[in-house]
Amino acid sequence: MSDPTEPCHDIAHLGHVEMFTPKLADSVHFFVNVLGLTESGREGDSVYLRGWDDYEFHTLKLTASHTSGMGHVAWRTMSQQALERRVKVLEAKGWGVGWTDGDLGHGPSYRARTPDGHPIELYYDTRWYEAPEALKPALKNQAMKYPARGCNARRIDHLNLLVLDVAETRVFFEQGLGMRLTEQIVLDDGTEAGAWMTATNKTYDIAFTKDNTGVAGRFHHLTYALDCREDILRAADVFLENGVFIETGPHKHAVQQTFFLYVWEPGGNRVEVANAGARLMLAPDWKPIRWTQAERSKGQAWGLKTVESFHTHGTPPVE
Amino acid sequence: MSDPTEPCHDIAHLGHVEMFTPKLADSVHFFVNVLGLTESGREGDSVYLRGWDDYEFHTLKLTASHTSGMGHVAWRTMSQQALERRVKVLEAKGWGVGWTDGDLGHGPSYRARTPDGHPIELYYDTRWYEAPEALKPALKNQAMKYPARGCNARRIDHLNLLVLDVAETRVFFEQGLGMRLTEQIVLDDGTEAGAWMTATNKTYDIAFTKDNTGVAGRFHHLTYALDCREDILRAADVFLENGVFIETGPHKHAVQQTFFLYVWEPGGNRVEVANAGARLMLAPDWKPIRWTQAERSKGQAWGLKTVESFHTHGTPPVE
Amino acid sequence: MSDPTEPCHDIAHLGHVEMFTPKLADSVHFFVNVLGLTESGREGDSVYLRGWDDYEFHTLKLTASHTSGMGHVAWRTMSQQALERRVKVLEAKGWGVGWTDGDLGHGPSYRARTPDGHPIELYYDTRWYEAPEALKPALKNQAMKYPARGCNARRIDHLNLLVLDVAETRVFFEQGLGMRLTEQIVLDDGTEAGAWMTATNKTYDIAFTKDNTGVAGRFHHLTYALDCREDILRAADVFLENGVFIETGPHKHAVQQTFFLYVWEPGGNRVEVANAGARLMLAPDWKPIRWTQAERSKGQAWGLKTVESFHTHGTPPVE
Amino acid sequence: MSDPTEPCHDIAHLGHVEMFTPKLADSVHFFVNVLGLTESGREGDSVYLRGWDDYEFHTLKLTASHTSGMGHVAWRTMSQQALERRVKVLEAKGWGVGWTDGDLGHGPSYRARTPDGHPIELYYDTRWYEAPEALKPALKNQAMKYPARGCNARRIDHLNLLVLDVAETRVFFEQGLGMRLTEQIVLDDGTEAGAWMTATNKTYDIAFTKDNTGVAGRFHHLTYALDCREDILRAADVFLENGVFIETGPHKHAVQQTFFLYVWEPGGNRVEVANAGARLMLAPDWKPIRWTQAERSKGQAWGLKTVESFHTHGTPPVE
Repeated sequence: MSDPTEPCHDIAHLGHVEMFTPKLADSVHFFVNVLGLTESGREGDSVYLRGWDDYEFHTLKLTASHTSGMGHVAWRTMSQQALERRVKVLEAKGWGVGWTDGDLGHGPSYRARTPDGHPIELYYDTRWYEAPEALKPALKNQAMKYPARGCNARRIDHLNLLVLDVAETRVFFEQGLGMRLTEQIVLDDGTEAGAWMTATNKTYDIAFTKDNTGVAGRFHHLTYALDCREDILRAADVFLENGVFIETGPHKHAVQQTFFLYVWEPGGNRVEVANAGARLMLAPDWKPIRWTQAERSKGQAWGLKTVESFHTHGTPPVE
Repeated sequence: MSDPTEPCHDIAHLGHVEMFTPKLADSVHFFVNVLGLTESGREGDSVYLRGWDDYEFHTLKLTASHTSGMGHVAWRTMSQQALERRVKVLEAKGWGVGWTDGDLGHGPSYRARTPDGHPIELYYDTRWYEAPEALKPALKNQAMKYPARGCNARRIDHLNLLVLDVAETRVFFEQGLGMRLTEQIVLDDGTEAGAWMTATNKTYDIAFTKDNTGVAGRFHHLTYALDCREDILRAADVFLENGVFIETGPHKHAVQQTFFLYVWEPGGNRVEVANAGARLMLAPDWKPIRWTQAERSKGQAWGLKTVESFHTHGTPPVE
Repeated sequence: MSDPTEPCHDIAHLGHVEMFTPKLADSVHFFVNVLGLTESGREGDSVYLRGWDDYEFHTLKLTASHTSGMGHVAWRTMSQQALERRVKVLEAKGWGVGWTDGDLGHGPSYRARTPDGHPIELYYDTRWYEAPEALKPALKNQAMKYPARGCNARRIDHLNLLVLDVAETRVFFEQGLGMRLTEQIVLDDGTEAGAWMTATNKTYDIAFTKDNTGVAGRFHHLTYALDCREDILRAADVFLENGVFIETGPHKHAVQQTFFLYVWEPGGNRVEVANAGARLMLAPDWKPIRWTQAERSKGQAWGLKTVESFHTHGTPPVE
Repeated sequence: MSDPTEPCHDIAHLGHVEMFTPKLADSVHFFVNVLGLTESGREGDSVYLRGWDDYEFHTLKLTASHTSGMGHVAWRTMSQQALERRVKVLEAKGWGVGWTDGDLGHGPSYRARTPDGHPIELYYDTRWYEAPEALKPALKNQAMKYPARGCNARRIDHLNLLVLDVAETRVFFEQGLGMRLTEQIVLDDGTEAGAWMTATNKTYDIAFTKDNTGVAGRFHHLTYALDCREDILRAADVFLENGVFIETGPHKHAVQQTFFLYVWEPGGNRVEVANAGARLMLAPDWKPIRWTQAERSKGQAWGLKTVESFHTHGTPPVE
């Protein structure tokens, strides 16, 4: 898109997240048997997983590590040309790192780093998931059979990063990737404390909030979408039955009105299940919603106070 | 977008539909008190309505007429430049009609006609809905207060046109508006019998099916989205209680997996309520799903046979 | 209860149903992996199953047989005295058969036969289900862990018998077991064509409809309750994915307003999943609702026509 | 029931609650337009209300008063004989007060007092609700038309009293009314801190918890049932939009597993909406669940901490 006065649409959607875990087997058990993802492959220290409605080979890459946190987050572009346009911009801005050889689920990707250092990848060439015979769906417009297992996570939805400087990170995603800001928190002194951004008609694909520990590059949470609020409530029952630590929820966020439920997977990373999106961002000229300090202090939509750990727990943990 | 090998993204979303009704007062009662829309204005013989999550002034314009049917369907573009690009294309193809002076809810729009003659409008300059004091929402990221009335229709979702030639109409929306085909029905003899197309990450914003009466330019249905399947079931209860004719549903379509419910409003037009979209079209290179004659003869997803009137009833009625 | 002018309350609830199947392994697979029941034991040719909220050892006994149909239906009484009172009545009426030695899930039971010959058992002494360690629930007021598997059937709800004479069968349950009629279908000529009866605050625990084949003692369906309508819709998805024949539904019955979904298990027996009962029968002096022939011809609550097989398919099949 | 070793079944169900309010007009607005009850009559300083599935003339009597709190709670008996049996018992125990002349919604009732002094009434002769033409339901097995307004409260479910001595109050309901204890909280020192009791197959119709203020006879909350959990979530949206104070919820209680949402009506009384009961008490020999101090300190089912006001706010308020 050559005209800077027009909306950019180079990023198609959030592709996948690589998550580090010090307890690979336990994490795989959680994501497969409790959350309901399906394994599509393994290579080296990594296990590749996806929700039943995810069309790509994987949307989560779990990698064994000495600690928790995010390995990288990858975005699929609208086309090969769009990918190349983004690479030029990222290089020009000095955010670029270079090309990778690809992975089990996609071809060569271009790696960049946010101001905090979070690794970001862009790719276009992908591997569509092909269901084995036993997992073929009854309806051919669906990626695989509905698993009817655990929380039945449908598809990857968004991720949330902890960052040292929200405004700088926002600029990275606006200018580097061409994404749009839809909602934000701005403190009384003008500091940005949180931002929600989208590349699609979803109201956000990524969010980031200020990390008060002063440690750069940490991860807040990864979210899978379920179909409806009843599914989130059922997920709470399933987490309870399986001994998973429920940090907070189910409840409704005032920001973005997401119906949320946060748990910690065995590796220590925060995982959210949220409803899959009756709310869409259709207006091309949406003015970002700005939440004030006073508004945020009221808690969540129906009055739940934000739990303290939500502001402090990130991965990897701070020593 | 100058490069034809790249996805086009000039249309932002379905804007509104003008619907003719021979019983204006009864139709307004239906849309406001049963479906749960809110009136935002009146002018001449027209009443302007919208769902509680529609951000524009109106998404439905009800106009008194001697018969039923669709007045026009309007699409909002991504920008003024996108609008001008589309006008050039429509004029070049011979589909254009010319500019209008605008309407209560938007500025000048460009009118074109599908091969069947259905009036289509494109506009960018719009009027955002501003809720009066009594209808201000509790959360400022929402267009208005949730009405808690009738079916509580959330937002306009899509429309369906009856057409003489599905393939020609598909080409109009692909080339004229730059929209994408996501699913289609192709008969054994190669004839296209139905098409579902999108301009967004929704899996379709418009559909059209063959009109076997031989009459051009008829209307099949207009759909408002509700949040979840439970809301559709509740809507069925509400329609039953209010004496509204339920044509078929609630059930799940095999095509697009929409959870549907069709009724006829007092003016005779078919109206659908459907769930608002856990299912999204995120892949930029989606290969359209092609349903065969044999597959369609199986009925809907869970086995419901398609009712005969679904193939014959359109508006205006055929003498 | 000695005073015949007072409501009788000797039957506590429906206990279990024994179902015959010519395909035991397939039927067990269906009930465990698709419907979501849990096996609690095996003996001889029988497998004992229950829903996660069923407090007794079993609510379904699947027994291998040369054909399909119902082995017997058992009712738990309020007390040992209540059981003895019922035995006296059944013997006096000539409906009694005699005492059994009990079964894996309960102590001695008294067997009787309906006018059609359907075997009925009454018992008080039961075996409470004790969950093994791996199936212990997180909340101690629940029988076992929520399975998060298949349709997650919650508890046995009711059964439906095909009978030659609805009125005679109704009298059997009213006088023999002390149950109450809550709704019925009465044809224009005064013949009773269907009856719904309850022993509890559920609006029915058993129903019976006229068998037009002239064959006595057949079985129509067994129903397990799920929590809400969304769960029934999800069950339809699960049945579809698992190749289970969906006969009709999901839809809402006008009679009793049950939200229903009927399928055929591999052995040929009809199984229903229905919502678990926001609707209760609290009035002690409820006047039975009488549906006329004209009213029934309108189809189900939202207009679905009753499928032909619903009137003809019963088990065992008629040669 | 002459045999004390058998379960008693003299009480049919909770009939209605009289609630005092210092702001009658505001309270009526809340119950009708926000909660969705329907007014069936007025007399003197009282307004009579009911849910759309309540079969009697009223289940809530709102009476203007200088303060808030409960006027009385009334229970319908299974029969006239059952009423007379209960009167004898209440008189013999010294709990009886005497007969009333009846009310707009029922004939003569017998009044008693709990150890705390809460007024209790028993009656059998009742007035069935008759819907006016505009409120006639589409299905004749339903009390009135579904309102499609506000939270659409379905039926009265239970009430909760604050009491000085939980054990004494439990004995009153066990011996005086013949109700059953299903769950309770027992502190480490053996003191009973809460009790949940039932007269039906619902798992509780009344609960009472210890009032630590030392003031006798106060009221904790009145609960109306909605159909499913999604309805409770929607109710939270409706309360939020209408400026109603949400005290806590929606969340799931560990005790009784109720999915709850507590708000304060304009008169100051606490009102709950809860899901209508997939969970039933069918076992005639249920052993009451005893929750310990340690178990209760864990908070609600999914981890929500009990808000402080839940232990202190009762009506009328303590000076």
